[in-house]
Amino acid sequence: MSINTFGRVFRFTTWGESHGPALGAVVDGCPPGLELDESDIQPFLDARRPGQSKYTTQRQEADAVRIMSGVFADGGGKQRTTGTPIALMIENTDQRSKDYSEIAQTYRPGHADYAYDAKYGFRDYRGGGRSSARETAARVAAGAIARLIIPEVTLAAYVCELGGDAIDREAMDLSTIGDNPFFCPDPAAASRWEGLVDKARKDGSSLGAVVECVASGVPAGWGAPVYAKLDAELAAAMMGINAVKGVEIGDGFAAARLSGEENADPMQPGTQDAGPAFAANHAGGIAGGISTGQPIVCRVAFKPTSSILTPVDSITRDGAATKVRTKGRHDPCVGIRGTPVVEAMMALVLADHKLLHRAQCG
Amino acid sequence: MSINTFGRVFRFTTWGESHGPALGAVVDGCPPGLELDESDIQPFLDARRPGQSKYTTQRQEADAVRIMSGVFADGGGKQRTTGTPIALMIENTDQRSKDYSEIAQTYRPGHADYAYDAKYGFRDYRGGGRSSARETAARVAAGAIARLIIPEVTLAAYVCELGGDAIDREAMDLSTIGDNPFFCPDPAAASRWEGLVDKARKDGSSLGAVVECVASGVPAGWGAPVYAKLDAELAAAMMGINAVKGVEIGDGFAAARLSGEENADPMQPGTQDAGPAFAANHAGGIAGGISTGQPIVCRVAFKPTSSILTPVDSITRDGAATKVRTKGRHDPCVGIRGTPVVEAMMALVLADHKLLHRAQCG
Amino acid sequence: MSINTFGRVFRFTTWGESHGPALGAVVDGCPPGLELDESDIQPFLDARRPGQSKYTTQRQEADAVRIMSGVFADGGGKQRTTGTPIALMIENTDQRSKDYSEIAQTYRPGHADYAYDAKYGFRDYRGGGRSSARETAARVAAGAIARLIIPEVTLAAYVCELGGDAIDREAMDLSTIGDNPFFCPDPAAASRWEGLVDKARKDGSSLGAVVECVASGVPAGWGAPVYAKLDAELAAAMMGINAVKGVEIGDGFAAARLSGEENADPMQPGTQDAGPAFAANHAGGIAGGISTGQPIVCRVAFKPTSSILTPVDSITRDGAATKVRTKGRHDPCVGIRGTPVVEAMMALVLADHKLLHRAQCG
Amino acid sequence: MSINTFGRVFRFTTWGESHGPALGAVVDGCPPGLELDESDIQPFLDARRPGQSKYTTQRQEADAVRIMSGVFADGGGKQRTTGTPIALMIENTDQRSKDYSEIAQTYRPGHADYAYDAKYGFRDYRGGGRSSARETAARVAAGAIARLIIPEVTLAAYVCELGGDAIDREAMDLSTIGDNPFFCPDPAAASRWEGLVDKARKDGSSLGAVVECVASGVPAGWGAPVYAKLDAELAAAMMGINAVKGVEIGDGFAAARLSGEENADPMQPGTQDAGPAFAANHAGGIAGGISTGQPIVCRVAFKPTSSILTPVDSITRDGAATKVRTKGRHDPCVGIRGTPVVEAMMALVLADHKLLHRAQCG
Repeated sequence: MSINTFGRVFRFTTWGESHGPALGAVVDGCPPGLELDESDIQPFLDARRPGQSKYTTQRQEADAVRIMSGVFADGGGKQRTTGTPIALMIENTDQRSKDYSEIAQTYRPGHADYAYDAKYGFRDYRGGGRSSARETAARVAAGAIARLIIPEVTLAAYVCELGGDAIDREAMDLSTIGDNPFFCPDPAAASRWEGLVDKARKDGSSLGAVVECVASGVPAGWGAPVYAKLDAELAAAMMGINAVKGVEIGDGFAAARLSGEENADPMQPGTQDAGPAFAANHAGGIAGGISTGQPIVCRVAFKPTSSILTPVDSITRDGAATKVRTKGRHDPCVGIRGTPVVEAMMALVLADHKLLHRAQCG
Repeated sequence: MSINTFGRVFRFTTWGESHGPALGAVVDGCPPGLELDESDIQPFLDARRPGQSKYTTQRQEADAVRIMSGVFADGGGKQRTTGTPIALMIENTDQRSKDYSEIAQTYRPGHADYAYDAKYGFRDYRGGGRSSARETAARVAAGAIARLIIPEVTLAAYVCELGGDAIDREAMDLSTIGDNPFFCPDPAAASRWEGLVDKARKDGSSLGAVVECVASGVPAGWGAPVYAKLDAELAAAMMGINAVKGVEIGDGFAAARLSGEENADPMQPGTQDAGPAFAANHAGGIAGGISTGQPIVCRVAFKPTSSILTPVDSITRDGAATKVRTKGRHDPCVGIRGTPVVEAMMALVLADHKLLHRAQCG
Repeated sequence: MSINTFGRVFRFTTWGESHGPALGAVVDGCPPGLELDESDIQPFLDARRPGQSKYTTQRQEADAVRIMSGVFADGGGKQRTTGTPIALMIENTDQRSKDYSEIAQTYRPGHADYAYDAKYGFRDYRGGGRSSARETAARVAAGAIARLIIPEVTLAAYVCELGGDAIDREAMDLSTIGDNPFFCPDPAAASRWEGLVDKARKDGSSLGAVVECVASGVPAGWGAPVYAKLDAELAAAMMGINAVKGVEIGDGFAAARLSGEENADPMQPGTQDAGPAFAANHAGGIAGGISTGQPIVCRVAFKPTSSILTPVDSITRDGAATKVRTKGRHDPCVGIRGTPVVEAMMALVLADHKLLHRAQCG
Repeated sequence: MSINTFGRVFRFTTWGESHGPALGAVVDGCPPGLELDESDIQPFLDARRPGQSKYTTQRQEADAVRIMSGVFADGGGKQRTTGTPIALMIENTDQRSKDYSEIAQTYRPGHADYAYDAKYGFRDYRGGGRSSARETAARVAAGAIARLIIPEVTLAAYVCELGGDAIDREAMDLSTIGDNPFFCPDPAAASRWEGLVDKARKDGSSLGAVVECVASGVPAGWGAPVYAKLDAELAAAMMGINAVKGVEIGDGFAAARLSGEENADPMQPGTQDAGPAFAANHAGGIAGGISTGQPIVCRVAFKPTSSILTPVDSITRDGAATKVRTKGRHDPCVGIRGTPVVEAMMALVLADHKLLHRAQCG
């Protein structure tokens, strides 16, 4: 069983391979009447788009999205969602399949090559086929629609650690995220990372990263206990992103080292509109799987890119020993371009849960 | 929308509150013909059962499970699953509702009290109602059935860190997990933890923990890309356990600090039966969301119990300031009794994905 | 894969066999705050209950329902739904397993005996096990909760044809449905049916029936195109009832014999509140899978009970020829007691779609 | 909530409107390794394609399908499914939106116009938008892939009654279905229908039809009790086709007029391979929701096309009285082109249930 659909009320299904003619998403369950055209989606795809700096892959893709259905402009009015499925398509233009011909018979360690063969009996090896992170473009496109459903929420995703070098939380300024090629909110760290990533790139090595995403403005009450808790859904959403190996909500693993007193989030009288005030947010905005009205805080660990120039022991499809040295065009740190994907998945989970909450609780 | 069902092919639905008459699970999609009676389930419930040592809550529950449907002994043969829903019921016997009467009007910080009120308008406050970890007994019972579906898999869950004190990986001996009240595989650490937990208990404080679960024997090929990846499903399964704040697969967050060379899992020629040999397992047995045949390794962070004797600022349902000091019977470290739950969730995800794989790939 | 859950937002999962200790349902997704206790459910179970007239099976079951979770009376107030799963349980008390011992090795024609064996390899043959219509008690119980969600809707299900003898539409009076043991809205037909059914019963024969269900008050706009159209969901709901072989919406098969002019449902200006007026309702209240505001009309064909005294050719589990003559306690016309089940399924589909509509369209 | 996905293991999601740039389907869960290219799909689309005889709409559409993902030809071999989502796209080429401009403000009786407005607040009125039967092209395309999964099954769908004129069952010859423009298996009836449909077309009137579909070769054991019974799933699949108002399995409504003796399907010793022999098939090949190994027989009632030239009372969006006389290009009998859709839905349900059965029962 193949599961290429995400979500419960606001759902999207993606399709496409790295080197096929196109990739896309079908968004189902979107409320009607939302103004939507390609310009609402394209900026988010542009943020994830390859080839924009020397710190990411040099594959060139316009990633131009086309809305194929589900919108209508009635009598000269603005184009709006109709409540029917919204099909999105992004054509692939710079596939260069020849780069990958030699891996047809060899398993790249750390990639899904062997696992796909073990599962399906064979695989589309061109650029990793369906297992390529190129699929995440479809998530980002769907995420742009999700944002329209949750205008009350402000999202910010950023790299908070790269190659083991963390940002200075005191120096963090979210307004600077777009000023550097790393989605880094600490200008000093961004400067240091230039050198780090450039060195990795030149060495044919790679680096990991930690991405943090904060959602402000989520009202208390979203989340569906007990098997679609908001934090559980976020965990699945994030762990399902290519190269992700860990997810934390709030203090995450650090909470396991605190005492109950240290980890407490005291509550104080608040206002009619904003709900209670909280003196801390160790919980990351979620209790019992339900949002508390505090900012939702999620952290995601990306492993270093598995494609490196250093030869690594591997085997062929026939089981013979070989060595793999991955040439071609790769991101030296996949966590960077993973940042807009993390933000998109946060939007997708929240939009879905806003509608889920409305379904049961009116 | 309330979501109390977990799984895709092998599914279970749980019900019940901490202080209701009973709790239970309905397991659907179980293959027919598996020998099953209560004795296959009870030992796992006993491992999670409260009141067994001074290091856990003193609530006394027999947690005796009763199978209400879905099994049949044909003509004197052994009782077997019939392929129809298996209903499991566990009666609550030691509710002591009076312990909780004072929290009806007050929100316990760190608990789901406020979030449930915000979502549903009111709540069953007796022992936390549905948000109580008592619900996890139903998961453990369902997990015992899941184990029957995956006899090829060996599971081991254990506490690898408690109150910030980690086990010595060199001294780790899985055969000792049952020898101490902490599911600790390092006898020396278990000794230290006795003091740690006892002090926390006497101080009315609490401690966090990290639980690790390893599944050996999972063949390559389980997992459903791209939105039901095996790691994503595990992440949801684990993050959905009460008090969990973080999940790692393989090296997890540590992988974000490695270089591509350090993080590589070299492959070597293996055997016909066992598949390739791997020289390392940074990936934790999953690539591209699909099992690789290596052991699946998952780590789960439990926050310290929110119920502590130290007064914490809070508010009443009417929004007035108050302080909460939680008396009653609580686990000083919920991660301990969370360990069998982690193992059960691993079994449930794997059983589901074994059947999912069979559905598509025969 | 076994599917014992029905619904999308308002879902229920049933369990239990004809001769097990109990049967039940877990209702998930119910809105919070609805007043609910056993007395809201029992009358509907009583309507379906066996042993109430000589025209139905003589099996005696109290069918007393018990609510096991999901409700709470806060501080002396009325017991209300909390938004968590509502578990319902009905104990079996009059199983008489010995009646069925001889069918363990023989397939009853028209029953699911052979099909279950072919699917699952063996079966719980006591009273038909899970395939028994006794399972529908759980649907009726869940349906009683569904009714609370749609107070704007009035439901009426009745037998409109029995043994080929149809009611007189001119003489139809819905207020008389409860005055006879056949859920018949035409007193003259009810009188005739007494003789028909009594003769069938004495002859050890059986009769079929057609049940009609009308839902008034459904607002325009419920239904989820294109694969959960309101009529498609009703068709599945009704066809899934034991012994049902046909479903019609509106004019049904008769519409296939009309011209476009004859089948038209002209629309006329209506009122702000009630929407447009319609001059006819050939469509049965649904267009494009969405309710139009007209009464929803559904008709359901029940085959004659397969259990008859006349010997019918059959085979044993070993494939040898035999004859089956079904003694024991059976309904001579299962359509009669199927009537409350039809009404329950209508309620369940409508409640689900009210919430589904709210999820997407606010 | 919008539901544009059908199926459980073998699932497809469709998108597109009558007058949008294209329509399509994403097929998920298809087993890997099946040979597939466009030529496996196109013939089925051609059978449903408009404009092929004077008895159907004159809209001209090539309905050329393009496979956008999910297939791969490895090293010169045949193109095969990879187990990843198969995206199918069909461009619209002959939209003529101007034909529909006048219905923007008027509700066509019998169409979904009013219902969509009531649900979504506005609608894409061009050719009926999403509610157009043009969407069924996507089902037929997906159905062609489903057929590859069930090579053991032979499908035959045909019109058995048109405008109230039924075929002669004695004269039925399935090999003649393709010899006439009506999918009629009785050549004499086909001749009569020429006149019937031609007259309706010239009069601007329309006719209904009954389509029958028989699936032979389905082994015993498919079907998922109790809420995804094979007959219930077929009922939903068929009732969800545009213009369908009734569904029967086996004898359907006629069974309600038979006695138990008349309706019996006696079983006789069969063969190891073929299973038991049945002396009759009143049940239509399904018992207890599970296939019995007999041919599965389903009948589907199509109402007459709602678009007719005779003026019918209606209202405008503003609620004013008007009359609607539908010009433009329409099928005088939608049941004809509905026939390949019925066959496709049968294939889709059976393929899904073959995989569902494999998931649970191996």
